[in-house]
Amino acid sequence: MLSRAADGPDGPLTFIPGAYRERFLLPSDMVYLDGNSLGPLSHSARDAVADLASRQWGESLISSWNEHGWMEAPRRIGAKIAPLIGAQADEVVVCDSTSVNIFKLAAAALLARPGRTTVLSEPGNFPTDLYMIEGLKRLRPDLDLKLVPRDEIAAALDEDTALLLLTHVHYKTGEMFDMGVLTAATHKAGALTLWDLSHSVGAVPVSLNRTQADLAVGCGYKYLNGGPGAPAFLYVANRHQQGLTSPLSGWLGHESPFAFDDAYRPAEDIGRWRAGTPPMLSLAALEAGVGQFEGVDMQDLWDASQKLSQRFVERVTGQCAEVELISPSAPDARGCHVSFRFHSAYEVVQALIAEGIVGDFRAPDAMRFGFTPLYLSLEEVERAADRLVDILATGRWRQPEFAVRKGVT
Amino acid sequence: MLSRAADGPDGPLTFIPGAYRERFLLPSDMVYLDGNSLGPLSHSARDAVADLASRQWGESLISSWNEHGWMEAPRRIGAKIAPLIGAQADEVVVCDSTSVNIFKLAAAALLARPGRTTVLSEPGNFPTDLYMIEGLKRLRPDLDLKLVPRDEIAAALDEDTALLLLTHVHYKTGEMFDMGVLTAATHKAGALTLWDLSHSVGAVPVSLNRTQADLAVGCGYKYLNGGPGAPAFLYVANRHQQGLTSPLSGWLGHESPFAFDDAYRPAEDIGRWRAGTPPMLSLAALEAGVGQFEGVDMQDLWDASQKLSQRFVERVTGQCAEVELISPSAPDARGCHVSFRFHSAYEVVQALIAEGIVGDFRAPDAMRFGFTPLYLSLEEVERAADRLVDILATGRWRQPEFAVRKGVT
Repeated sequence: MLSRAADGPDGPLTFIPGAYRERFLLPSDMVYLDGNSLGPLSHSARDAVADLASRQWGESLISSWNEHGWMEAPRRIGAKIAPLIGAQADEVVVCDSTSVNIFKLAAAALLARPGRTTVLSEPGNFPTDLYMIEGLKRLRPDLDLKLVPRDEIAAALDEDTALLLLTHVHYKTGEMFDMGVLTAATHKAGALTLWDLSHSVGAVPVSLNRTQADLAVGCGYKYLNGGPGAPAFLYVANRHQQGLTSPLSGWLGHESPFAFDDAYRPAEDIGRWRAGTPPMLSLAALEAGVGQFEGVDMQDLWDASQKLSQRFVERVTGQCAEVELISPSAPDARGCHVSFRFHSAYEVVQALIAEGIVGDFRAPDAMRFGFTPLYLSLEEVERAADRLVDILATGRWRQPEFAVRKGVT
Repeated sequence: MLSRAADGPDGPLTFIPGAYRERFLLPSDMVYLDGNSLGPLSHSARDAVADLASRQWGESLISSWNEHGWMEAPRRIGAKIAPLIGAQADEVVVCDSTSVNIFKLAAAALLARPGRTTVLSEPGNFPTDLYMIEGLKRLRPDLDLKLVPRDEIAAALDEDTALLLLTHVHYKTGEMFDMGVLTAATHKAGALTLWDLSHSVGAVPVSLNRTQADLAVGCGYKYLNGGPGAPAFLYVANRHQQGLTSPLSGWLGHESPFAFDDAYRPAEDIGRWRAGTPPMLSLAALEAGVGQFEGVDMQDLWDASQKLSQRFVERVTGQCAEVELISPSAPDARGCHVSFRFHSAYEVVQALIAEGIVGDFRAPDAMRFGFTPLYLSLEEVERAADRLVDILATGRWRQPEFAVRKGVT
């Protein structure tokens, strides 16, 4: 994945940043650097949701489960996500939330490695990843959640490790793990890998098959532009599909849900990871969001993103010494977002929002900005950088209204 | 709940069947007796979904989590469901699917009853309820899922019972458990109750507080008209809220999700049962669906439903000896749907659908019909009954096209 570093962010771009801007309904006076928290609405998502509601649900009602392909939607959308993460179509399914999917896969991995009781991760991983393992520990008190700094992870893998659970692109710093190297080390220790791709899918090239990754989960509402709280996805490598079973064995994961048997028999395929009935309105938006990536090469998109983020970083750090980049400075060592540390990050983010530049505050002192070339142009990113520099230079983030904390997202 | 049996279905009705028909977008040539599988689209749900997509997501983007009350939606909608099930506003939250919520609460109940290992239920309960306990057993092999016929349940409660898990209104027959009697018996044995209200909420009066029920879950897409795969809800009696914790301890159940702490601390209130980010498009439809019940007395609605179902049953069984009612014959002993056994139930249901009468087939040999007075009139129900009788009398269900099985829902 790092092989094209020589071209770097300054090589010629195949995907022109902002090329798909017209597909999205972004307010014209807004520079939206927060697609890594909630991707924007596309025209096709808006239309898909309206169609699902009025024509499918409204007119076909219950028969839509067959007529309009609702029953197959989780597998169908999973198959569309698969090429974005280097997986086969039958290795991915859309269901539940990222959190719930982590629980399912981590529990199944533990059961597949009897005698091993450690889940290895890093401190500062996205909290829900750690929280779900804490929850699993309530039911499996022998489980040990072991957190070691990222540069000590490979050395910490041992014969007690059942699972390595990492977020591929760090939610705050954007730092990216080398999936191939860590997966190989994990396998050497006899353990399985579970990659959280929430900040990777639709952002950077991911090669689950090539790196021989075992398990993965990811989010639908960030770079996939699937809508607020869009259902998540999960990946199980084909070689594990018969051996692993979900502890959340709901009826839609049954081999034959409408036989209404008292006893559970998991579906033969990736469909076994489904639990309850899928939320179709949300799935319709997700399918449309994923559809925007059709024909887009992820390496090309990442190249464009690197160009955007690097231009932003250089323009900010070149003019302003007060903020500290806490993301890797090499663009190919990070995902599609960067973060800066600043003592009053909350206030600065509010001041930016007031001027139409939307980024994220991440407690306690980080400003985070996402660079998604589908709809962001180089000119917008430069304008946003200049505005940030100006807000810092003038100190207008000190205006009292920017200090009022709302329930922060 | 059985106290008004004397008035029966023939007393004067306060809620006139079909009174809210204009609020729904049902096709004019359809008699929809399948609201117990998927409730219809209301105008307000259609508008709420469009508003959530275009105005909230499309224009306010990430700031909608605060500006448009997204973050509070699970608690807010839970509070609106609460009066329909005899609960306090702070005892109900909307999250995940019914299946996943069963897992959370059953696991928490087991942990709250150390030394007890039996989950008691009945054979033929809705399958996912049993399947989720099977899944839990993967993680807790000491767990015993004990199934006894419904009339032996009270006697089977003993000092090893941790949890009684029952569906209040049976998904197939519509038979209703006496929640008060069984809850009292369960408490006497030192165990907890978990009621699945999927076929009760919005259908019959439910008195969780009065019967001292401990835990409950329910579905958003049936009588609540919340849309296909609408998120589910769960109820935890106030007296248990500090003592029980979800094993699916995701970040949105954290006391302070945006502190991004490594360690999990459950929220003080019902919000602790949330796991991942809620699917807002689906929640918008659910909130609008629940809104239709504002000002409606559940006893009045059930009275009207009994009138409808009884008229249907009498009209069918009075003219046709071939079908056998497998629901209780006393209308106040059942919920808002009835089922008939017939050797070729699948074909008859298909023949009815072809004539605009939409009911459900339930394997292997049941025809199921739901009676929701919000939008169904007495005249429609009579027409549907006559059509069923005619299809049986003429034998036109034998036409070959009705024998072609589609993936059945």
